[in-house]
Amino acid sequence: MFLLNGEPAHCIDPADRGLQYGDGLFETLEVRQGRPLFLDRHLRRLASGCRRLMIPMPDAGLLEAEALSFAAGREAAVLKLIVTRGCGGRGYRQPDVIQPTRLFSLHPYPDYPAHYQTDGIVADFCRQRLSSNATLAGIKHLNRLEQVLARAEWSDDSRQEGLMLDVQNYVVEGTMSNLFIVKNGVLLTPALTDCGVAGIVREWSLAFAAAEGLPSVEAAITVDQVLAADEVFVTNSVIGIWPVRRLAGQDFPVGQVTQRICAAYRLAKQRELS
Amino acid sequence: MFLLNGEPAHCIDPADRGLQYGDGLFETLEVRQGRPLFLDRHLRRLASGCRRLMIPMPDAGLLEAEALSFAAGREAAVLKLIVTRGCGGRGYRQPDVIQPTRLFSLHPYPDYPAHYQTDGIVADFCRQRLSSNATLAGIKHLNRLEQVLARAEWSDDSRQEGLMLDVQNYVVEGTMSNLFIVKNGVLLTPALTDCGVAGIVREWSLAFAAAEGLPSVEAAITVDQVLAADEVFVTNSVIGIWPVRRLAGQDFPVGQVTQRICAAYRLAKQRELS
Repeated sequence: MFLLNGEPAHCIDPADRGLQYGDGLFETLEVRQGRPLFLDRHLRRLASGCRRLMIPMPDAGLLEAEALSFAAGREAAVLKLIVTRGCGGRGYRQPDVIQPTRLFSLHPYPDYPAHYQTDGIVADFCRQRLSSNATLAGIKHLNRLEQVLARAEWSDDSRQEGLMLDVQNYVVEGTMSNLFIVKNGVLLTPALTDCGVAGIVREWSLAFAAAEGLPSVEAAITVDQVLAADEVFVTNSVIGIWPVRRLAGQDFPVGQVTQRICAAYRLAKQRELS
Repeated sequence: MFLLNGEPAHCIDPADRGLQYGDGLFETLEVRQGRPLFLDRHLRRLASGCRRLMIPMPDAGLLEAEALSFAAGREAAVLKLIVTRGCGGRGYRQPDVIQPTRLFSLHPYPDYPAHYQTDGIVADFCRQRLSSNATLAGIKHLNRLEQVLARAEWSDDSRQEGLMLDVQNYVVEGTMSNLFIVKNGVLLTPALTDCGVAGIVREWSLAFAAAEGLPSVEAAITVDQVLAADEVFVTNSVIGIWPVRRLAGQDFPVGQVTQRICAAYRLAKQRELS
């Protein structure tokens, strides 16, 4: 069920700093036909996060080999990789020599209804805010209590995602996704300078827009701007791209730009697989 | 080495949300003569944190019994208790029925030089800030990357503690301690409304001041106020109370109020033991 430092395992050292302090980071990938999609991009983001947290990244070639072998044969799944600062040190002080922990796990691909993709999802704003800290902004680190508390604000199917604001009232992202809006043909997504997670599909979408000459902007976005948008969608590596058809009681179409990006992303995934 | 859900253990389920998201909280206690000191106060703080994080607290009587039995026979040690939201749920979404994990561990009491207590320590300000989030402020939760990164700013004995500011430039606490200053006979400590950990010795010190008619204030404190203080000290359950003799290159005496509080705390510990 787990691959811990290269070995099958069902348990981990409780002294691991990942448990003690959330001292680590993670990647979540979609697996199709036994292949973890966009693995290179995920490993690059992991490398960036490790650099910023000053955790020596396990060898990328080794991670790639383990990911491929662990995911092999899984038709559809979610592959998660956690890297921590390992064990040791005294209190918050890190060990002099860091031996990072690498932990792979596989999970069933969630059985989302197909209409989430085609017709869009329902979302609402969360009360829980995202705190600001430029040192950690963008990193997919293990300190996720804010997301846990935000997600706890609903427990039924009345909505599929909750959007979170920062302490300055800007809309940043969903509990488990990045946010895009389209206004007058321009693609906008919140800048993640103070908080949030810089997603792989977000990165892909911005690159796609640039390549296609579709104007795009990373900026601070207000609630009013979101509610006045022509189109709204959310992204992450497991869901891909979900249009938002209803937000805070307001309806949105599944618009042209959203459909175009969704189609292109599906094509990009198919190319990954061939 | 560990007592996991009442059983001796050397490993934990990697699916535990404490590892996955830092979804939990902890207590750190001093053990003297086989007894965890101020256990009641720590269990009360744990209960408060569990309520705020919506984690069902394990039975207090059970925790007390396990703490006493696990620490028995240890002349001097540090007892740590981690409580997490356990395993389960999907992603950030918590399980419908939460089975919290409780994990005790024992650690050697650190071999601090006696002069830290008598002559005071050296401290300096950290670059790493504490982010603001009222939902989590005060709770000794597992999301401690800010403290890890702050602590990484020094690795020698040139200082014993680093003081952290919030994003509004107020001084909040040390990486592993709470902060007090004395000015004109008044005891001041930062209010922890937006960030920081509400420590047990901090709580004890404020109660002592109130009982003794020593004026005390919880307020936002600036760097200038700290540097202009008559006395400075830091507190936590392992160190007790350490005077600060030098901060950011500036010297401070081990003053009368600090000495009075240190002496009273030592007495309070002795009463705990008898």
